[in-house]
Amino acid sequence: MELTPEQQADINSARESHYETRRPTVPELEDVLFRPIPLLDHGFIRVVDYMGDDAAVVQAARVSYGKGTKKVSDDAGLINYLLRHRHTTPFEMCEIKYHIKLPIFIARQWIRHRTANVNEYSARYSVLDREFYIPTVDQLAAQSDSNRQGRGDLLTGVEAQRVMDLLQSDAQTSYDHYIEMLNEDENGNVIDKSQRGLARELARMNLTLNTYTQWYWKIDLHNLLHFLSLRADAHAQYEIRVYADAMLETVKRWCPITFQAFMDYRVGGVTLSAKALVVVKQLLAGNAITQAESGMSKREWRELMVSLDRPED
Amino acid sequence: MELTPEQQADINSARESHYETRRPTVPELEDVLFRPIPLLDHGFIRVVDYMGDDAAVVQAARVSYGKGTKKVSDDAGLINYLLRHRHTTPFEMCEIKYHIKLPIFIARQWIRHRTANVNEYSARYSVLDREFYIPTVDQLAAQSDSNRQGRGDLLTGVEAQRVMDLLQSDAQTSYDHYIEMLNEDENGNVIDKSQRGLARELARMNLTLNTYTQWYWKIDLHNLLHFLSLRADAHAQYEIRVYADAMLETVKRWCPITFQAFMDYRVGGVTLSAKALVVVKQLLAGNAITQAESGMSKREWRELMVSLDRPED
Amino acid sequence: MELTPEQQADINSARESHYETRRPTVPELEDVLFRPIPLLDHGFIRVVDYMGDDAAVVQAARVSYGKGTKKVSDDAGLINYLLRHRHTTPFEMCEIKYHIKLPIFIARQWIRHRTANVNEYSARYSVLDREFYIPTVDQLAAQSDSNRQGRGDLLTGVEAQRVMDLLQSDAQTSYDHYIEMLNEDENGNVIDKSQRGLARELARMNLTLNTYTQWYWKIDLHNLLHFLSLRADAHAQYEIRVYADAMLETVKRWCPITFQAFMDYRVGGVTLSAKALVVVKQLLAGNAITQAESGMSKREWRELMVSLDRPED
Amino acid sequence: MELTPEQQADINSARESHYETRRPTVPELEDVLFRPIPLLDHGFIRVVDYMGDDAAVVQAARVSYGKGTKKVSDDAGLINYLLRHRHTTPFEMCEIKYHIKLPIFIARQWIRHRTANVNEYSARYSVLDREFYIPTVDQLAAQSDSNRQGRGDLLTGVEAQRVMDLLQSDAQTSYDHYIEMLNEDENGNVIDKSQRGLARELARMNLTLNTYTQWYWKIDLHNLLHFLSLRADAHAQYEIRVYADAMLETVKRWCPITFQAFMDYRVGGVTLSAKALVVVKQLLAGNAITQAESGMSKREWRELMVSLDRPED
Repeated sequence: MELTPEQQADINSARESHYETRRPTVPELEDVLFRPIPLLDHGFIRVVDYMGDDAAVVQAARVSYGKGTKKVSDDAGLINYLLRHRHTTPFEMCEIKYHIKLPIFIARQWIRHRTANVNEYSARYSVLDREFYIPTVDQLAAQSDSNRQGRGDLLTGVEAQRVMDLLQSDAQTSYDHYIEMLNEDENGNVIDKSQRGLARELARMNLTLNTYTQWYWKIDLHNLLHFLSLRADAHAQYEIRVYADAMLETVKRWCPITFQAFMDYRVGGVTLSAKALVVVKQLLAGNAITQAESGMSKREWRELMVSLDRPED
Repeated sequence: MELTPEQQADINSARESHYETRRPTVPELEDVLFRPIPLLDHGFIRVVDYMGDDAAVVQAARVSYGKGTKKVSDDAGLINYLLRHRHTTPFEMCEIKYHIKLPIFIARQWIRHRTANVNEYSARYSVLDREFYIPTVDQLAAQSDSNRQGRGDLLTGVEAQRVMDLLQSDAQTSYDHYIEMLNEDENGNVIDKSQRGLARELARMNLTLNTYTQWYWKIDLHNLLHFLSLRADAHAQYEIRVYADAMLETVKRWCPITFQAFMDYRVGGVTLSAKALVVVKQLLAGNAITQAESGMSKREWRELMVSLDRPED
Repeated sequence: MELTPEQQADINSARESHYETRRPTVPELEDVLFRPIPLLDHGFIRVVDYMGDDAAVVQAARVSYGKGTKKVSDDAGLINYLLRHRHTTPFEMCEIKYHIKLPIFIARQWIRHRTANVNEYSARYSVLDREFYIPTVDQLAAQSDSNRQGRGDLLTGVEAQRVMDLLQSDAQTSYDHYIEMLNEDENGNVIDKSQRGLARELARMNLTLNTYTQWYWKIDLHNLLHFLSLRADAHAQYEIRVYADAMLETVKRWCPITFQAFMDYRVGGVTLSAKALVVVKQLLAGNAITQAESGMSKREWRELMVSLDRPED
Repeated sequence: MELTPEQQADINSARESHYETRRPTVPELEDVLFRPIPLLDHGFIRVVDYMGDDAAVVQAARVSYGKGTKKVSDDAGLINYLLRHRHTTPFEMCEIKYHIKLPIFIARQWIRHRTANVNEYSARYSVLDREFYIPTVDQLAAQSDSNRQGRGDLLTGVEAQRVMDLLQSDAQTSYDHYIEMLNEDENGNVIDKSQRGLARELARMNLTLNTYTQWYWKIDLHNLLHFLSLRADAHAQYEIRVYADAMLETVKRWCPITFQAFMDYRVGGVTLSAKALVVVKQLLAGNAITQAESGMSKREWRELMVSLDRPED
């Protein structure tokens, strides 16, 4: 990730601002405010604003006249209770806003979460930067044999090299031609005065899906945790997971009590189906039970046994 | 509106807090932060938190690395353009949170706006206060003759007095019996140790719809303006309009440029249908046109002529 | 629940209609279409329209050109997989519309689910019926000692009788005065020509919260299942649970495969936190573990042991 | 647009199905049900299901026990009134589902409308078809001089030919390499058994943004009209407008009364700001007024005069 001198100056200027406020303020999050956290080869996230903190969750749950907080231990007990029993509305009372730079094919996955507010950089209006995502060799994976939408072993040797070459050259060529068709460089200067230049809203169609875009993205804490439970998960595509992991760290700074409850009740937890619960009860009672007897599919049975640390069953 | 000493102390304590922040801060809104604005006989609104300002709208529209702002006049031009062309997403980047006390029958209208986050005081969990909305005599209106969902002239004399007496006595009686069935006073003390007390989730059904409730209500600026365009309007019921009017004042403090654009393009504007546009063009061309010729209904025609200051037509 | 002769005739007429369609059609649901299912003393639900079926879930998941279905067993496997892995969007492709009559205090709980479309009968516009919910004696419960928002033992004897009398008389009195203030009976006839009558939008504030209202309520299958997972649950208030239970029966008619997956993976399942999972693994490994060692609160520990059929632990 | 024989057979089979239903049914829409309407070079829309009709809007507005309809003229009057006064909830009671094939760069605009339900064909799971959007020569426009996000005159001669060549060759090359990296053809057959093949979730990043994707897209009538008011508008990009125009035709078949009201009150109407309204009143009173006196910007003034058929002012 490289910033232009103007961009860096804008960020520095924002970070040097200090204002007085009566609002709930979180110094640990203020520390990183506005500062880009680099991700993948050209991407980043940066927190640009926030509203509320752990105490604001408590305050809303109590419909309080003051800060809502009594003691930290009380707050933690209430937040655990709310998260455990899926009383989700108090977590909607905190809000966070990110500026995010990410490849378009990841932006297409991301935007399916409809509960956020989004302003994306417009390629109808402006020229996109010459930046594309190219995976590193340790992410150049073959199609998984067992999971139709996952990755398997790494590609190696000639095949890996060929893939690298193709990804790089096709992105470069498409971008070069995008600029040529626009007849306008990245800074908006006309290239050849004898040409008209294709409309930006059309020329963009020539770009490859690993071209970077950027957006402002704002969401409440409840819906952010839902996003993170899906995207910071092992089943998520690596390229979105690195963003989710970095955002999880910002949640840890912002609302540490809620973060801890989330790790305990969502990330580290498992859901047992009615049939799986019967299996667990049988095993606890010392009775043998087989996959066939359980009524579960082989895949479900395997997943259950792995989650119970009994992979051999 | 009366606050208990504890509530007043909680508010005072919150108002005395001062923190340092890098976030956009609006001194005019900070001035009134946490302070209740009294409405109707026992209601209020108070701003308890906010995120963003006019510059944050500009910043999101430009997907900017800095504050987004260049000059105030540039910002105003862009904000006017966005509001006029219904580019609504940048206005979603500002967020405000209110604590509101209001009669239940108004809360039922209000909650139909589904784009806000809400935490309501729970009458399953706690005892409601002995507070009911009783209209003042200058609001005690008869049913409108012309509008099936509006008010007409004021009631007077014996009829007005009878209505006042009934509203007061039924609310009081229902509340007294609510407390009696609960066997618990407003402070949670048991009244008669020989009784069990009806469950709170059942006893509340005896209350009248003018009983006050309260909630935390959080919304983004775009959806707030949509709410205000409907509820700060002359067609809205008076009892919700006083809340909307007070909230509009807080918007004026918070985002004065957006407020001004909203007043110009929404509140003070009119929408002409295709048929109404034909009428205006005919009149401008100096041609006479009648309601019958216009294809408009009598009601639409009348509304159009009033909006054009030609009520006699 | 009593219907007027006109209402019954309207329903009969709708049920006698038969049209030809190319759309997916579910005979088991058509059987009960438009017919009210009585609930509580004056309430009902009735299905008034629907779109899609189990095969429509499969069709959307496959973005199919045809009906999406291959074999019933394939469909069931896919639907189970989707529900288990929280791939929720295909379930949003089915939609159902209900007409519901329910007490206002239950409508206030219900409306907090913001993902439905709602048209409520307007008491600004029309006079409400003289119908209030009065619990039966087997629902007249005391406040729970252990759960601040639940019910405990039944009230008995004099206390129960007193509660019954108060609920009935306050609802009746408030309704009588509502009609008196309106100066208009339930059929819209003026009562006393020498009076003006209070505006409907004001008079309604005198009604008690157990007065019945009604609405059209439309929702997609995914969000309906989420609603039912919360409201057909033992922790839900009885008066909303009876509605949820009846709606669950309509889901069983409409999408039997999805219904079965929902019962297995949601209703009959449990979620284990990270700490609870450690406890289960220890127990399966034959190791003793106490609540104190687990790091769980007493309440969580008790809930876990009950769900594992080990209430004595 | 070409369909495979299997796709065509699936569609034919669905069209030949006939079921009996008690639901509201619209023969004019049934006539085109399932049939693809070709758009652009490889795209289409087809209606795959619907719920409700004009009478369902009326039925919901009246919270009716029957069909809601009295006479067609009454229905039209009520629907006009609802649309004119922005009583939007009754229009949410109708729902329609489309299957749509469209270029990815248009899908990215489209998905910003968050009120629809969407299931997109997954390029993590399946191989995309070899189909890209290439504009026809009469759409190959230069960047507009006056509008930063619009089109100006057509490109001609060598420049037009060069753009065509680049768009075609880059899309072809990127797709060829996508297939090569996948080591799997469009039918899922392995190409070279000595190679592993790049994971589908990675290979897709090499595709250009004019590649076609497809999705199921379901929305209620109110939100569809909002989408169409923005996307069937002259300011919308041509490539999305052709879809919106085709969908508008399906609305005309489905709900002709609502369609007519929409054309009159939305499509053919104009909104006047407070300042514009003052100008119109002055002109009607026979007074001259200039742009400078109006307080309007030059651009707003010009737009107003054009809408009033006074372009020379």
